[in-house]
Amino acid sequence: MIARTGIRLGAAALVTGMLLAAPATAQFAKPEAAIKYRQSAFTVMGNHMGRLAAMARGDRPFDAAAAQNSARIIDTMARLPWEAFVPGSDQGKTDAEPELFDNLADVRRLADRLNAETTKLVSASGNLDTLRNQVDATGAVCKSCHQKYRKM
Amino acid sequence: MIARTGIRLGAAALVTGMLLAAPATAQFAKPEAAIKYRQSAFTVMGNHMGRLAAMARGDRPFDAAAAQNSARIIDTMARLPWEAFVPGSDQGKTDAEPELFDNLADVRRLADRLNAETTKLVSASGNLDTLRNQVDATGAVCKSCHQKYRKM
Repeated sequence: MIARTGIRLGAAALVTGMLLAAPATAQFAKPEAAIKYRQSAFTVMGNHMGRLAAMARGDRPFDAAAAQNSARIIDTMARLPWEAFVPGSDQGKTDAEPELFDNLADVRRLADRLNAETTKLVSASGNLDTLRNQVDATGAVCKSCHQKYRKM
Repeated sequence: MIARTGIRLGAAALVTGMLLAAPATAQFAKPEAAIKYRQSAFTVMGNHMGRLAAMARGDRPFDAAAAQNSARIIDTMARLPWEAFVPGSDQGKTDAEPELFDNLADVRRLADRLNAETTKLVSASGNLDTLRNQVDATGAVCKSCHQKYRKM
C-alpha cells in the first residue's frame, strides 16, 4: 500500500514536473490556436499603444482616464503572448522569424523588460509628461524585439 | 510597431473632425481594424474561458492563481469588443449577424450583463465551487448574445 502510494505520488510528481516544464503547450489545442492567441494579444496591445501614442504626440487631447484604461490593457496584454511561442507554431500564418524559436530565453528576457515598462506605463499614464516618456520607453522595447524577431 | 502605429495615427489625424463627432469610430482607422480588434479580444477571452471551463469540469486540476489570472484577463477583455461594432464593420470578415448593427442598444445591455458576470468571476475564481457556478453564469451570457448576433 505504502509502496503503491509512493509509486502513485512519484507518477503524479513526474506529471506535475512535466506540466511545470511545459505549461505553454497545455493551453493551446493546436499550434494555429497559439499563433492566433499571441497575434490577438499583440493586436489589442498595438491598438492601445496607438491611442497612447496619439495623446503623447498631441494628435488627440490627453484624457487621463482613457490613458490609464489603455495602459492597464497594455500591461495585461504584454504578459500574454510569450507562452504561445510553442513548438510547431513557427510554421503557418506567423510573422515570427524562425530565429525566435531558437532564442526563447532571449525572448523571455525581452518580455520581462517589456513587462517592467508596461507596469511603469500604468503609473505614468495619469500625467501627459510622464506618459510621453513612458510611451517612448515602452515602444523602444517593442521595437528592439520586433527588429530581432518579427518579419518586416 | 512604431512605424505601423505612425501610419494608423496619420490616417486618423486626417479625419479628426469626424472622430470628434463620432467617438465610437475614433479608435479604428478602418472598419477592418475594428473587426480585427474585436475578434482579438474575443479570441483572448475565449482562450481563458476555456482554461476556466477545463478546471470547472475537472479536466484540469484547479489552480487558484491561474484561475484568478484567467478571470482577470476575461474581465478586462469583456469590456473591449463593444466599441468596435462601428459603422461599416458589418461587412467583410466578420461573424456578426447584420441584425447586431440594428440593435446596438441591446448589444450594450448584453455587454453590461456580461461585464457584471466577469466582475463576479474575478472574486469567484479563488475557490473551485464558486468558480464553477460563475463560469456557468458567465458562459450563459456569452451564449445568449451569440445565439442572437453571431453567425453559427
